[in-house]
Amino acid sequence: MTPFKLTDELLEDIKRLIAENADAQLQEMLNEYHYADIAEIADELEVEEATYLIKLLDSEKTSDILAEMHEDIREAVLSNLTAKEIAGELEELDTDDAADIINELPKEIVQEVISEIEDREHAKHIVDLLRYDEDSAGGLMAKELVKVNENWNVLTCVKEMRAQAENVTRVHSIYVVDDEGRLKGRLSLKDLLTTSTKTNIKDVYIDKVDYVNVNEKGEEVAKIMSKYDLEAIPVVDEIGRLVGRITIDDIVDVIREEADKDYQMAAGISQDVEADDSIWDLTRARLPWLILGLFGGLGAAAIMGSFEEMISKHAVLFFFTPLIAAMAGNVGVQSSAIMVQGLANDDLKGSISSRLVKEMLLALLNGVILATLLLVFTWIWKGTFTTAIAISLSLIIVIVVAGLIGTFIPLFLHKRNIDPAIATGPFITTSNDIFGILIYFTIAKIILGI
Amino acid sequence: MTPFKLTDELLEDIKRLIAENADAQLQEMLNEYHYADIAEIADELEVEEATYLIKLLDSEKTSDILAEMHEDIREAVLSNLTAKEIAGELEELDTDDAADIINELPKEIVQEVISEIEDREHAKHIVDLLRYDEDSAGGLMAKELVKVNENWNVLTCVKEMRAQAENVTRVHSIYVVDDEGRLKGRLSLKDLLTTSTKTNIKDVYIDKVDYVNVNEKGEEVAKIMSKYDLEAIPVVDEIGRLVGRITIDDIVDVIREEADKDYQMAAGISQDVEADDSIWDLTRARLPWLILGLFGGLGAAAIMGSFEEMISKHAVLFFFTPLIAAMAGNVGVQSSAIMVQGLANDDLKGSISSRLVKEMLLALLNGVILATLLLVFTWIWKGTFTTAIAISLSLIIVIVVAGLIGTFIPLFLHKRNIDPAIATGPFITTSNDIFGILIYFTIAKIILGI
Repeated sequence: MTPFKLTDELLEDIKRLIAENADAQLQEMLNEYHYADIAEIADELEVEEATYLIKLLDSEKTSDILAEMHEDIREAVLSNLTAKEIAGELEELDTDDAADIINELPKEIVQEVISEIEDREHAKHIVDLLRYDEDSAGGLMAKELVKVNENWNVLTCVKEMRAQAENVTRVHSIYVVDDEGRLKGRLSLKDLLTTSTKTNIKDVYIDKVDYVNVNEKGEEVAKIMSKYDLEAIPVVDEIGRLVGRITIDDIVDVIREEADKDYQMAAGISQDVEADDSIWDLTRARLPWLILGLFGGLGAAAIMGSFEEMISKHAVLFFFTPLIAAMAGNVGVQSSAIMVQGLANDDLKGSISSRLVKEMLLALLNGVILATLLLVFTWIWKGTFTTAIAISLSLIIVIVVAGLIGTFIPLFLHKRNIDPAIATGPFITTSNDIFGILIYFTIAKIILGI
Repeated sequence: MTPFKLTDELLEDIKRLIAENADAQLQEMLNEYHYADIAEIADELEVEEATYLIKLLDSEKTSDILAEMHEDIREAVLSNLTAKEIAGELEELDTDDAADIINELPKEIVQEVISEIEDREHAKHIVDLLRYDEDSAGGLMAKELVKVNENWNVLTCVKEMRAQAENVTRVHSIYVVDDEGRLKGRLSLKDLLTTSTKTNIKDVYIDKVDYVNVNEKGEEVAKIMSKYDLEAIPVVDEIGRLVGRITIDDIVDVIREEADKDYQMAAGISQDVEADDSIWDLTRARLPWLILGLFGGLGAAAIMGSFEEMISKHAVLFFFTPLIAAMAGNVGVQSSAIMVQGLANDDLKGSISSRLVKEMLLALLNGVILATLLLVFTWIWKGTFTTAIAISLSLIIVIVVAGLIGTFIPLFLHKRNIDPAIATGPFITTSNDIFGILIYFTIAKIILGI
């Protein structure tokens, strides 16, 4: 495979062919490409051009292209299609992807689109999926799976399976249910093929099967599947009935999104944005954190203002405030990031107090090393030992407090079932800026005896 | 499945049974657990206790337990085993996991362990894997796969496949090679079963198959597999010979590690550490960035010192330095984080200069909003309009410069093939602190006409 690379030339070619209505050439050219590559192309076209391609190509391919396209572009393209055309696309998709697309449609046309889906069973499955929260196992699962009844014999089972497998892209497991549809176990393809056709399923199935509840959080499903190296996991409802199946490729997306979210949170970006989003969207994601930082800065200024009387004799103290604020912020973010990752990976054992003691020792060690460096520099630079000592001692205390705050806040939020990731980034740096500067001036004042 | 939860009671029970040498009870108890759960338990035991379990249980299970255990604990446990015992464990593992474990062993015993592996074919495969870089496709792949020769007929093929499939946990695809072992295509199980046994493979195989080169970066493999929704991908060497296969579960680990690394980088943690690592390890990961921050702070202090003559008339300027530094840092981290994510996802189209223009407009918009807020506050608080104007105008320019630096540095590093993620976090905040404060005082000085 020569990896696909979207070049400007290719894009120009396609735009030109669309402008010339060169349908045959376009079809011939695009048939060579994987749908994921065409989706990448479509994302870069004007909406009218992308719509043109979607209307031109086979719905078997276009449905997959639509599913892979960027959400915003897809929405725009779909708004150019009739309810019947949209229904045609959904018909070709797995129920989970179809439900995701329906969730994005304007409410007023959802009803019509669903009624236009010809395969009523497929439509019913999609409607079933619509009621689940997007971030839950129910929101991730597809209805496509292969299931057999424990009361069947192998022969019936093989026949039924063939019919079901038609609709399922990849068969990972054959699930066994009872007459009420409750998940009982799974069947290996090998066993099925090596057993006499008259054997009852009841006698051959494996009753150990991992599953998740339909209300389980997506993040949890991801943890379970990657811990146990599963490629697919069945989903059951509140009373144990098999209602769907989640495959690993959907979980890869969950893991990526979760990681992106945490990363953006740490960088002070409050919603999922990309570099190519509009200036307005980017501002909405960034400005709130900057305003928070602004208020933090105003708080710091107010604190410094209240120590104004020290400025004539100890101006140098004021020169070190950015250093103190930066160190408090850095230590806080480091500590909270380690906690957030530990919580995300379920890695943290032991009590909160033992965590805090450890962080205190760690911060103390780092603080002493940094303060010693600072002491030497300040002493040489300004020549007053007391001031240098005052600044360095304050730095140690500021670092310890910042470390404790950075450790405690994520643990506290987690206990209250709030995503600890919101604690990282600007939130920690801003509050540590203020605390740091307050502690710094208070201690300096005591030591310098003003 | 009741999800496994490692409780203190369970851990105590196991520790007690180990102390009592209650082998039968331990075996009975642990047979019920999944190897991934036992690995979780072993990670919490003392090394001697974990070694006891590994020696007690079946090597079929213990090999998987070892593969799932925490690296440090595994290393300690393996150092308690003889070369022969280690070889016994490796015998049970897939070649990729076995090679990973060998890579961790002390050099002096590697030779002996390999020579103790009874299955020479398996040993040879493992040795083959050792020469690849850990982060490359070669380092990720396993030798276990099902391949058939294009010159065989279906009957030979089915026979050969049965034998090969014994060693392969999950058969995702059957790969077709020529007499020289070069990858030609793949075969669907369905086609194989519905074709006459005398048909030649040459006539039925699908010649479109995604593959990666053995030297491809792990990150790239992850991108390809998740873009095309692949559950496995074949790996070929420099001359196109099929040498291995990468499965999606290994890719999930790559994605997680990559995300963790970027996150830690943004938080100023320079190597992969966890909350439970020793204070010494944590210090080594954190202290370098803090020292960088310290130097940045000293730089800021030096700059402020050089503007000392302003302090008597415009003390308020000095009160706002933490605000200026914080805003410069926050804007810089936001911009660089968006670039780093865009680069990681190959999302960035267009030229560097258009990126910089966009960031400038964005920073200008945010800057004006923030400066207006700041102006109002400062004016009310201090009552001097000129000072308020000077501070606010400086803020706008500082924000624009910080945004440009935050955008440019990741793009620049990426062009030079350096991981742009190192630009985020303390590096950006520290350099922006210094630039921010320098710009701020310079502009204030000009406006206030001192």
